[in-house]
Amino acid sequence: MFYMSEAYFCKLPRVWLACHVLQESLLSSASGYSNYRGILNWCVVMLVLSNARLFLENIIKYGILVDPIQVVSLFLKDPYSWPAACLIIVSNVFILAALYTERRLAVGTITQMTGLIFHIFNLTSMLIFPSATVLIVTSMTPVGGVLSLGIYTVLFLKLYSYQDTNRWCREIRQAKAKRLTRSYSSGHTHVSYPGNLTHRDMYYFVFAPTLCYQLNFPRSPRIRIRFLMRRLFEMWMVPTIQNSMKPFQVPNHLIWLIFFYWFFHSSMNFVAELLQFGDREFYKDWWNSETVTYFWANWNIPVHKWCLRHFYKPMLRKGVNKFLAQTAVFLMSAFFHEYLVSVPLKMFRLWAFMGMMAQVPLAWFVGRFLNGNYGNAAVWMSLIIGQPVAVLMYVHDYYVIHYGSTT
Amino acid sequence: MFYMSEAYFCKLPRVWLACHVLQESLLSSASGYSNYRGILNWCVVMLVLSNARLFLENIIKYGILVDPIQVVSLFLKDPYSWPAACLIIVSNVFILAALYTERRLAVGTITQMTGLIFHIFNLTSMLIFPSATVLIVTSMTPVGGVLSLGIYTVLFLKLYSYQDTNRWCREIRQAKAKRLTRSYSSGHTHVSYPGNLTHRDMYYFVFAPTLCYQLNFPRSPRIRIRFLMRRLFEMWMVPTIQNSMKPFQVPNHLIWLIFFYWFFHSSMNFVAELLQFGDREFYKDWWNSETVTYFWANWNIPVHKWCLRHFYKPMLRKGVNKFLAQTAVFLMSAFFHEYLVSVPLKMFRLWAFMGMMAQVPLAWFVGRFLNGNYGNAAVWMSLIIGQPVAVLMYVHDYYVIHYGSTT
Repeated sequence: MFYMSEAYFCKLPRVWLACHVLQESLLSSASGYSNYRGILNWCVVMLVLSNARLFLENIIKYGILVDPIQVVSLFLKDPYSWPAACLIIVSNVFILAALYTERRLAVGTITQMTGLIFHIFNLTSMLIFPSATVLIVTSMTPVGGVLSLGIYTVLFLKLYSYQDTNRWCREIRQAKAKRLTRSYSSGHTHVSYPGNLTHRDMYYFVFAPTLCYQLNFPRSPRIRIRFLMRRLFEMWMVPTIQNSMKPFQVPNHLIWLIFFYWFFHSSMNFVAELLQFGDREFYKDWWNSETVTYFWANWNIPVHKWCLRHFYKPMLRKGVNKFLAQTAVFLMSAFFHEYLVSVPLKMFRLWAFMGMMAQVPLAWFVGRFLNGNYGNAAVWMSLIIGQPVAVLMYVHDYYVIHYGSTT
Repeated sequence: MFYMSEAYFCKLPRVWLACHVLQESLLSSASGYSNYRGILNWCVVMLVLSNARLFLENIIKYGILVDPIQVVSLFLKDPYSWPAACLIIVSNVFILAALYTERRLAVGTITQMTGLIFHIFNLTSMLIFPSATVLIVTSMTPVGGVLSLGIYTVLFLKLYSYQDTNRWCREIRQAKAKRLTRSYSSGHTHVSYPGNLTHRDMYYFVFAPTLCYQLNFPRSPRIRIRFLMRRLFEMWMVPTIQNSMKPFQVPNHLIWLIFFYWFFHSSMNFVAELLQFGDREFYKDWWNSETVTYFWANWNIPVHKWCLRHFYKPMLRKGVNKFLAQTAVFLMSAFFHEYLVSVPLKMFRLWAFMGMMAQVPLAWFVGRFLNGNYGNAAVWMSLIIGQPVAVLMYVHDYYVIHYGSTT
């Protein structure tokens, strides 16, 4: 018999006939669906495929473009003087000065006030000494200058956090001593103040991918060799791809995206894996940010965490208005951006400073008038258009100064 | 006093000093994070920005490219004969034939077997009649041919589902009558068999964006005017953008992606909103597919649902092996792909058929050797490379036939 048995249909539930359900399409914003991992993979596949072609074309047309002498010449003008390397080695003096000051403070051979003055002097000279060196030493190249100033800025933030945290520890110890409670150790391998004031602990913090000091960083259980190798491969691969695109016009925005991945994902994870540093939150989901504020709070977590812990929250605790404190954070951020660009290029133009400060009204505008995917699109637009404009300003001025008039 | 009060630190929890937590970076696959809605927005912003430039450049260089006569000439060779339009109007004959056959079957004036023969004859002629017309009528253009054959294929699938579902309803009614249970109506507005055999119900199904018939489709409560306008704007905007790119080399893959959005999101949602059709699942998250099978099962839900309900599951119920049934689905799909390409172009080359059948070993390979993001990348690669190759084959052969030798 051709028809299915009637007995079968008796068992068939009535709902089987209904094969449609009231529901929205996934791409409609009403669906609330957000898993687009595949789109990220698509971007990577497109990048690799299009660059595989460019890379091959490049090698065929120009040969291998990475000229070792050219790369070295980015850092050195005179092969007998290595100003950037020397400057970076000298930074150890400041690190050790901070450590020894803390040791004195811990045992009480100097007063709190003397220690504070020592630290302020140490930190101020960490900003002035390298910038003066970069400005005075003529054999310093712009790339070498940015690199050494960047390292000094990172160390400045780290040592500020170091003295802040150690002072808090001291104050907690003092408060406890008054309340006659005993210090407890939460685990047998954990150190407590002042047991942390060792060279080993200090240099672990200096190399760890974070700006906020704490006693007993969370540690990952073991070094995963495969993970390490993947990150190492990426660290080597990403600049190679970027380099292969040199003779072509690649939007500044794409370079920034690739740099972000290279620095915040590959490099930081590589260092963290090597040091078994447990906290890998170097960025949050800034790509979904629907307001400018969310973007700035989530794309660079080490700096954001530092600002929150050592600048914003202490200010709030001193009774400063919330909006004023936020603006102050942007001001400080703008100062450091300007510092890192102006000094190595020896041009004081305030473009970076103004670019950062322009974020405050932009944040207000986007937060006030746009939301959801429109807000997200606005954040992307400001990144795609804003960054290249700021960079172009400096490039333009640099060429005008160094290679004559543009006319 | 410069230092914070000691009383404050007594209240300060000890955990406040620890500001790091053991966690993975979001982009590491170990984190399991998958919200990349922002990346999708980035793609849209990049597409719009880059095309805004192209669009402007285009208008400046070439003027407005959409030549109405050129568009019409895609459909018509001879302005006094409209073969594609006539063919589409004639399709009503088949729709009404199916409806009247079902009405006879419902009241029992013809036997089940006679009805089945009627339906088989009706459905077979729905495939043969339009293809014969397209092949014979010389004034039929390829675009007109694809359009009318596409509409006939959709109607074929719809009417097959119509007769299948109505037969099931009849068999349930019969089984119930034997078991002496009464038919119940689940809601006052719901119709039950044979109350559904009206012209209104039939034409609602013909225009509804689904291939599977059911009594009482789920309906959305009202027409959202803003939603409708957004989809209408997209339907008009997307081809305009695509058209603006014409004189430039745009990868076939991007055109397919844009077509997907235009057809499966904008157009289908527009029609569904107009008809208050509730089930908007026209696609699932195929962009995340980690196997080829998942992609084919999720990018085109109306066809997939039809295959499952009227082809795959009935075959399984008849005791066919699972793998054999899957291959049969691919075979049928390959047949229709070939049918829709070969007949309008009047070239029988089997490229589309072979392309579809090549998915079976590819699915096995990807499923066996690749998983996670690697599987997803492989699916994207097969889409990015596979499709243009298949299309190129036909374009090449078409030019060889119509514009002489390529040498």
